[in-house]
Amino acid sequence: MNETEMRAVLETLGRKARRAAAALAVLPSDAKQLCLEKMADALLAARATIAQANAEDVAAARSAGMDEAKIDRLTLTDARISAMADGLRQVAAQSDPVGRVLSVDVRPNGLEISKVSVPFGVIGIIFEARPNVTADAAGICIKAGNAVILRGGSEAFRSNMAIAAALNAGGSACGLPEGVVQLIPWTDRLAVKLMLKMDRYIDLVIPRGGEGLIRTVVAEATMPVLKHYKGVCHLYVDAECDMAMAVKVIINAKCSRPAVCNALETLLIDRAVAPAFVPMIGRALREKQVELRGDAAFRALWPESLAATEDDYYAEYQKLILAVRIVDGVEAAVEHINTYGSRHSDGILSCIPEHIAYFTANVDSSTVYVNASTRFTDGGEFGMGAEIGISTDKLHARGPMGANELTSYKYIVRGNGQIR
Amino acid sequence: MNETEMRAVLETLGRKARRAAAALAVLPSDAKQLCLEKMADALLAARATIAQANAEDVAAARSAGMDEAKIDRLTLTDARISAMADGLRQVAAQSDPVGRVLSVDVRPNGLEISKVSVPFGVIGIIFEARPNVTADAAGICIKAGNAVILRGGSEAFRSNMAIAAALNAGGSACGLPEGVVQLIPWTDRLAVKLMLKMDRYIDLVIPRGGEGLIRTVVAEATMPVLKHYKGVCHLYVDAECDMAMAVKVIINAKCSRPAVCNALETLLIDRAVAPAFVPMIGRALREKQVELRGDAAFRALWPESLAATEDDYYAEYQKLILAVRIVDGVEAAVEHINTYGSRHSDGILSCIPEHIAYFTANVDSSTVYVNASTRFTDGGEFGMGAEIGISTDKLHARGPMGANELTSYKYIVRGNGQIR
Repeated sequence: MNETEMRAVLETLGRKARRAAAALAVLPSDAKQLCLEKMADALLAARATIAQANAEDVAAARSAGMDEAKIDRLTLTDARISAMADGLRQVAAQSDPVGRVLSVDVRPNGLEISKVSVPFGVIGIIFEARPNVTADAAGICIKAGNAVILRGGSEAFRSNMAIAAALNAGGSACGLPEGVVQLIPWTDRLAVKLMLKMDRYIDLVIPRGGEGLIRTVVAEATMPVLKHYKGVCHLYVDAECDMAMAVKVIINAKCSRPAVCNALETLLIDRAVAPAFVPMIGRALREKQVELRGDAAFRALWPESLAATEDDYYAEYQKLILAVRIVDGVEAAVEHINTYGSRHSDGILSCIPEHIAYFTANVDSSTVYVNASTRFTDGGEFGMGAEIGISTDKLHARGPMGANELTSYKYIVRGNGQIR
Repeated sequence: MNETEMRAVLETLGRKARRAAAALAVLPSDAKQLCLEKMADALLAARATIAQANAEDVAAARSAGMDEAKIDRLTLTDARISAMADGLRQVAAQSDPVGRVLSVDVRPNGLEISKVSVPFGVIGIIFEARPNVTADAAGICIKAGNAVILRGGSEAFRSNMAIAAALNAGGSACGLPEGVVQLIPWTDRLAVKLMLKMDRYIDLVIPRGGEGLIRTVVAEATMPVLKHYKGVCHLYVDAECDMAMAVKVIINAKCSRPAVCNALETLLIDRAVAPAFVPMIGRALREKQVELRGDAAFRALWPESLAATEDDYYAEYQKLILAVRIVDGVEAAVEHINTYGSRHSDGILSCIPEHIAYFTANVDSSTVYVNASTRFTDGGEFGMGAEIGISTDKLHARGPMGANELTSYKYIVRGNGQIR
C-alpha cells in the first residue's frame, strides 16, 4: 500500500473515530458501564480466537529470535485474557469521570458559570510489546467518553487485532457506533508518522514504551502528547531518620521491580549520617546483589563500590545497579535531584520536619515522597482504579493518570438575557 | 548580532529565568503580594521614562505609516500607566493560586497522598502591539509563582523595555532575584524562532495576537502552547424563546465590541421561529448598520441580505458583518457549530429545557451559553480577577485563563515506611 492509499484509509478511520467520540461523549453513565461489561464478555467469548492469534505472534517472534523475557510479555495465557476482562469490569464499575461539576459560581449579574468535565474526543495510544494494553487502554479511554485509536508493536499485531475485534463486537452488541476502538492496520513506521499528523482527528496521544519511542512521538506529533521519558528516581537519607526503616524502603524501591519507571536509581546520603548508615545499607544491598557506583566520599566508607561517573547520575539503569552520592544536607540533595532527575518520583527519609518541608516544597517532581518507597507512583496504588500512564509533564496531568485525567472541561453559562 | 551570539544571550536569559522561577516557586504568599505592590509603585515612579520611551515608539510608528487604530493601542497615556499599576495591585490582592490542596486521600496502607498546586516554572508570552500586556502578563505569571520571558511587538519595543525595567526595579526592591521578568532584547524574527526552541528553560508559551502569529508559534514551539486561533462564535435562536431578549442578546454579542474574539460571527435561527423572528432581528441589526450574509431561506424572509458563501460560515469577521443561517432545530444547529465553529463560545437562546440540555451537552466548545451574550467569555467576567488569555485547547486549560490556570500540581505522599 502506498502513502496516498494509506492516508485515505487513515482519513476514514479518523472520521469514524470522531463520530464515535461524539456518541460516546453524551452516553449516559449506566450505558457506558454496560458497554464496558459487554466488551469484557466479548473478550471471554473470543478467548480461542485471541489465543490462536497470539500463538501465531509468539511463534513468529520466537523464530525471529526474540528473547524469552519479551516472549513472556507478548504471551497471552488464559489467565491473562481473564485478567483483561476483569480489568474492563473494574473500570466499568468506577464512577463516571465525565459530567463532574468541577465548580459552580453565580456572578453578581446572575450568570451561573458551571465548569463541567467532558471527554477529549479521540485519544491515540502508541505502545510496544504487551498486547493486553489494547484492552486496558481502550477500557479507560471509553470510560472517560473518548474513542481510541491504537497502534501496537508489530510483534503483537495479530493479538491486538483479535482483541480489538472482540472489543468492537462487545461495543456493537450494546449499540455503540463503529469506530470506538480502532487499530492502525499496518505495522510499518510510515503508519505511525502519518497517525501523528492527524491532529484534525486525534486530540491527544499517549506513548507507552522506551525513551526512544517516546522521543520519536514527541518530535513527530502535531497534537498534544502526555508522557514521561524516563524515571530517574531518588531517595535522600537525611541527617536524622529511622535508619532501619530507611534500609527497608531503599531495598524495596531498588529491588522489588528494578525494571519499572518508579524504581530507585540514585541514593543520596547526608554526610552527617553516612558513617553510621553506609555500612547498614551497603550490607543490605550487597545481599540483594546490587552493584553500587558511588562518589569518592561513599567509596571511602564502602570500598567495594565502583566509582560513579557524571553519566551514572543521569542513568535510568532499570536493573540492579544503584548510583550513590554523599551530599551536604537537604539543600544539596534537592539541587542534585532537580539537576539530574527526571521529575518523576523522589523521596526523603527523614524525621526533621523543617527538612521534610524544604524537600517537598523545592523538589520539582510529579510525586514527592516522605518516608515511603517511590514504587507507589502508580494509578492502582493512588486509588485511581486503572492507569493509562504516568506523566512528568506539567501541563494538564502530572503523575499517575486515571480516567479523570482523560477528561477536559467546558464552561456552561446560564443566564436570563445578560448582556455586557 | 549573529545567531551564535544570540543563542548565547538567550541561554543566559533562560538560566536566569530558571533560577528566578525556583525562588518564586517557594516565595510565601505575603512576600509575593508585597513584590507585586512594589512593582506597581515602581511603574508609577518610572512614569516619565515610560512615557518618553512610548513617545519614541509612537513617533517611529507614525512615520512608518501605522494606522490610527493601531497607534491608539500602542499609546500609553498617563491613565493607561496608572491602569497597569492598578492591575498589578488587583492581582497582588488575589488569593494565592500556589499551594492550594486540590485533594487529599489516605490510602488503606496509611499513605497520605496530597495533590498540591505548584507553578509551571517559566512562562513565555509572545504578543503584538499593546505594551500594557507587558505589565499585565508579568503580574499574573508572578502571582502564580512563575518567571516570565516576554517577546512583544517590535513597534512597542522601547515601551516594553521601559516597563520591564520598572518591574524589575520593583522586584529587586523586595529581594526578588534577577530574571523574574525578562524581555527578549531583539525585534527580529530569528529571536522568536530561537526562543521557541528553548524548552529546557521555558515550560509553557502563550501567544496573544492574530491567527498568523499563533500558527507560527504552534508550528515552531518545542514546548506546550496554550492558545486560541480565533473566535467564530454562534448564537442559536430556538423554536421557542423570549424573542425580545434574543434581539437584545444578539445585538450585544455582535455590536458591543465587534473586533474581539468573543463577539458573535454567525447567527443560527430555527426554521419554525424564523418568520416571526427574522423581521425583528433584521430591523435591529439594520439600525446598527450590520451587514448580513444569509442563506436562501433567510434571504427569502429578509431580501436585503447578501448571499452567504461556505467561507462566510468559517469567517471571523471582527467587524459589523454577520453570517446567518436558518436551520432545522437544535440538532442541526449543534451540527453547524461543531462543523464550522472554533470551539470558543457558542450559545442557545431558548425556553425549551430539552433543547437547552441537548445543546449544552453536545456543543464541543470551551464555553457554552444559555440565554446570555457570548461577550462574557473573559477572565474578569468569570471572576478570575485577571486574564492571561483564552484557550480553545482541551489539554490543561480551556476558556478564560487566570492565575489558577498558570499552575500545575504535584503529589506529596507522606508515609511511615510503606513499601510495595
